[in-house]
Amino acid sequence: MIRAEPLTAAAFAPFGDVLDTAGTPDRIINQDRCGRFHDRARLDFGPGGRAGISLFRAEPCSLPLTLDLVERHPLGSQAFVPMAAEPFLVVVAPDAGGVPGPVRAFLAAPGQGVNLLRGTWHGVLTPLGPTGLFAVIDRIGPGTNLEEHTLSDPPVIVAAG
Amino acid sequence: MIRAEPLTAAAFAPFGDVLDTAGTPDRIINQDRCGRFHDRARLDFGPGGRAGISLFRAEPCSLPLTLDLVERHPLGSQAFVPMAAEPFLVVVAPDAGGVPGPVRAFLAAPGQGVNLLRGTWHGVLTPLGPTGLFAVIDRIGPGTNLEEHTLSDPPVIVAAG
Repeated sequence: MIRAEPLTAAAFAPFGDVLDTAGTPDRIINQDRCGRFHDRARLDFGPGGRAGISLFRAEPCSLPLTLDLVERHPLGSQAFVPMAAEPFLVVVAPDAGGVPGPVRAFLAAPGQGVNLLRGTWHGVLTPLGPTGLFAVIDRIGPGTNLEEHTLSDPPVIVAAG
Repeated sequence: MIRAEPLTAAAFAPFGDVLDTAGTPDRIINQDRCGRFHDRARLDFGPGGRAGISLFRAEPCSLPLTLDLVERHPLGSQAFVPMAAEPFLVVVAPDAGGVPGPVRAFLAAPGQGVNLLRGTWHGVLTPLGPTGLFAVIDRIGPGTNLEEHTLSDPPVIVAAG
């Protein structure tokens, strides 16, 4: 059993970036009506790739959730930006010699997105609200950019606390 | 006075791309639990630039709205992805010899984002819901990527119908 942790930049740093407005804006723009939190994702589209924006519409999930499949994208980073103010679950694992190591689960709060670093093992998209709509910024280009791994001992992920 | 039009891909094409899930997904992924609407934005980060993800938090606006300032980014495209299911106003204008031509206004519905083509004249970010939170995918790099133009006869933008 794995408890979902709060999604913080420090805890998530080995896996990717938290896209939120924690802290103060880097710049104030638009006649002082807008704060810009600048360049918050370590994007990486590898050789031969370029950035693309796609939309994902995924079926809502709920906790507890049994995770039997993780995947990674060896050629590029992948960012998930929720298009509704709803939470989602972010499941990741460090690499352990070509297979996923111990799984961790983070609960993205409304207003938070994530950018997964190139090659980060992660679960499939698991919205916890009804909308399930995300903008995904990832690599467009040739090559095999998906590796899947079925977990032999699928963990059950539960809400924190 | 300018009436805000519904935001459709066809009407908006000269200015940019509508980011939404109109139509059927291009691919079904994640064990059939997710539809991918693939590569929907004409991204362009120009020479010497790269893609970045920033977050914008803007003050909510309401209609009618007087628009006195438009701007454009000569070195790259700029995409706005709302992080709450709330409408926003998208004001654009064609270029007319280095200055903005006739202004048009589009009403982005909840679940819609936009990508502005490189060099498109546009108004500043005008959320019509309370959250005002957007992910912005635009160019990071050297050079002057902002040109502003004050409208001598500021139009008033009103809701459709």
